[in-house]
Amino acid sequence: MLTAAGCYARRSNLWSRIPDVVDWVLIGDARHVQYFSNFRINPISFSADQRCLLLLQRCGAATLLADNFVRRTASGDPVVDSEIIIPWYTHKKSVTNRDHALVTALEECRNCWSTADGLVEAEGVTQAVAAVVAATTLPLPISRPDQSLASVGTLIRELRRQKLPDELELLKRCMSACDAGHVAAFKAARPGATELDVYIAIQRAAELAAGCSCVVYGDFRATNTDVHKAGGLPTDYVLQDGDLFIADFSVIIHGYRSDFTNTIAVSDPSGDQTRQFEACRDALTAAECTLKAGVRASDVYDAASAVLLERGYPALAHHCGHGLGMEHPEAPILVSESDDVLLDGDVVTIEPGLYIEGVGGMRFEHNYAVTDIGAERLSNHRIGLTKK
Amino acid sequence: MLTAAGCYARRSNLWSRIPDVVDWVLIGDARHVQYFSNFRINPISFSADQRCLLLLQRCGAATLLADNFVRRTASGDPVVDSEIIIPWYTHKKSVTNRDHALVTALEECRNCWSTADGLVEAEGVTQAVAAVVAATTLPLPISRPDQSLASVGTLIRELRRQKLPDELELLKRCMSACDAGHVAAFKAARPGATELDVYIAIQRAAELAAGCSCVVYGDFRATNTDVHKAGGLPTDYVLQDGDLFIADFSVIIHGYRSDFTNTIAVSDPSGDQTRQFEACRDALTAAECTLKAGVRASDVYDAASAVLLERGYPALAHHCGHGLGMEHPEAPILVSESDDVLLDGDVVTIEPGLYIEGVGGMRFEHNYAVTDIGAERLSNHRIGLTKK
Repeated sequence: MLTAAGCYARRSNLWSRIPDVVDWVLIGDARHVQYFSNFRINPISFSADQRCLLLLQRCGAATLLADNFVRRTASGDPVVDSEIIIPWYTHKKSVTNRDHALVTALEECRNCWSTADGLVEAEGVTQAVAAVVAATTLPLPISRPDQSLASVGTLIRELRRQKLPDELELLKRCMSACDAGHVAAFKAARPGATELDVYIAIQRAAELAAGCSCVVYGDFRATNTDVHKAGGLPTDYVLQDGDLFIADFSVIIHGYRSDFTNTIAVSDPSGDQTRQFEACRDALTAAECTLKAGVRASDVYDAASAVLLERGYPALAHHCGHGLGMEHPEAPILVSESDDVLLDGDVVTIEPGLYIEGVGGMRFEHNYAVTDIGAERLSNHRIGLTKK
Repeated sequence: MLTAAGCYARRSNLWSRIPDVVDWVLIGDARHVQYFSNFRINPISFSADQRCLLLLQRCGAATLLADNFVRRTASGDPVVDSEIIIPWYTHKKSVTNRDHALVTALEECRNCWSTADGLVEAEGVTQAVAAVVAATTLPLPISRPDQSLASVGTLIRELRRQKLPDELELLKRCMSACDAGHVAAFKAARPGATELDVYIAIQRAAELAAGCSCVVYGDFRATNTDVHKAGGLPTDYVLQDGDLFIADFSVIIHGYRSDFTNTIAVSDPSGDQTRQFEACRDALTAAECTLKAGVRASDVYDAASAVLLERGYPALAHHCGHGLGMEHPEAPILVSESDDVLLDGDVVTIEPGLYIEGVGGMRFEHNYAVTDIGAERLSNHRIGLTKK
């Protein structure tokens, strides 16, 4: 869960970046509502796909706006000064359009926004809601000469890069669950098991470790000498001797996620597979050694890629890694032409992989918290084709 | 999956309800994009929480607008005439605000909407997107004298009640998976198991039956003589002799969901628990017998409630049931003061429950497709406190 101290600090960071003329900001992206208030609509609930709002005022006040059924599916207690909860459904009468509850809620707190200028998070607030506050909304969010579309949503994404302690704690819970999933994968990825069987074993282990139901998504696919690249959710393919099983998955807890990979040899790995693994492992280590605030993201990519090239393999076929937090992927992006520079507080993943015809595909990945002096590794799973 | 024929029929139903002056409709609610196009952002993917758009034109054309990463996480092939997919991230460069890809996409198909008047689904389209088409958007969606906020979103919700054959097929897949989950619950709900253990067993069985990863949400809680009401996701509570385990859950496949309940006696049920079960079961049957297009939703409620009252129990403490499809709950709402009347094509749930201090809580539930001559039961799980 995000803490009150963390929510206050994130709001304070937001206000420090917004011109004084702005008195309030209306947030509509569900991730950003959570970022500033700890209120999250649990996606494993009947309110997945629903909407809510957060009104932030420069005086420090925060107001949550939601319908009563959305409110019931919070995965954390909201850190707000007041809540406007519309009794959309009370088990007594027919229902009307649920989205209109937010319009009603916003009208109910008119005194908070009608007498001063404010900003709407235009990427997350719906037109129906924005129309209510139109009269007092500043016409162009935050115009900056270098970016025609700079906006509240962009600003919040920038802030999101530098994780605060409560976010790191939450990420560490995801990491532990993801670690447990990788232990289970070693057991489950055997000849005769389907990809779906392995997924279910991973999901079970992650949920038991987390102590709650979680979304577990990613790549759960076999490759081999015939098919050297595969990604996405598991199929009914039955694992066979010689296959490599890529388990590249995220466990989401309260909106934050881990994202790390191992590749398992379903039977004894071949010499080619072992050499390929060693190149990936050493590329991972080389990239890891570069991590520090101030380093260019492209340098991290280059460090990994150089190892692969040295060993006679092709350069990385995909990114070397990316930022981690509330969505995938997010800045910084660790690629050859990246403009990003690592920041203290970035949480990143490094995930070199090789997909070689006649051998198979593999990828290995750790997650790190970047600091001014280096990086802390957050993932603790075993990197290796075999259990020992 | 939704079929092409189904998508065309739903679009045709939409256009038949929209005034001739409207040439295009821009859909932004992810559920509604799917409803008309079969394109759904898989919530078990890295694109959960992201957005996409569907532009429908009266000439029949449909255009999907998305970024390339959203496109990759489709859980079904889109039924559209064209796609505008913005290469937001290509593993080469840093990323910009992902939401702005939709603005770019809409500008790219300007020729489809700029020369005629159209409507925006104001509840689902963000302000950033709506601003692009503002010049040609009709000011008030569909104004009707009886409803100040009637709109595209409301109209689609009305259409959604009457399921077409492809929707029914999808719902039946959810039902089969939910049936399998209930079989697993009987095995798992034993003294010594936690609520979370039972959840995981249900989830596993549902996913194996569905052949894919699914979201499984609902109530997975124990009640007993001390605690007669509990709901929500599972906890680490350890089941004990005398407990009643309520498994009221939905399995979501491609956006549609089943929703049915059974209550399991963790050890032999008491006489009071058995009598309470029989009352619920008979209330369920009584309500089921009323189902037919044209019947008032309140009559279904009354039929169930009358059985409980006759047996000396209190009236229903919650709804008797509700419509089922893409969200929860949806019309028709089966409650005492409902204005709803059942329609041919409605899919509904009936779920009488009793929560008695000193005895425990229980609820039993089946799902039905309403027709002009009665109803087809879609759920086939065992209703009963014990396995036999």
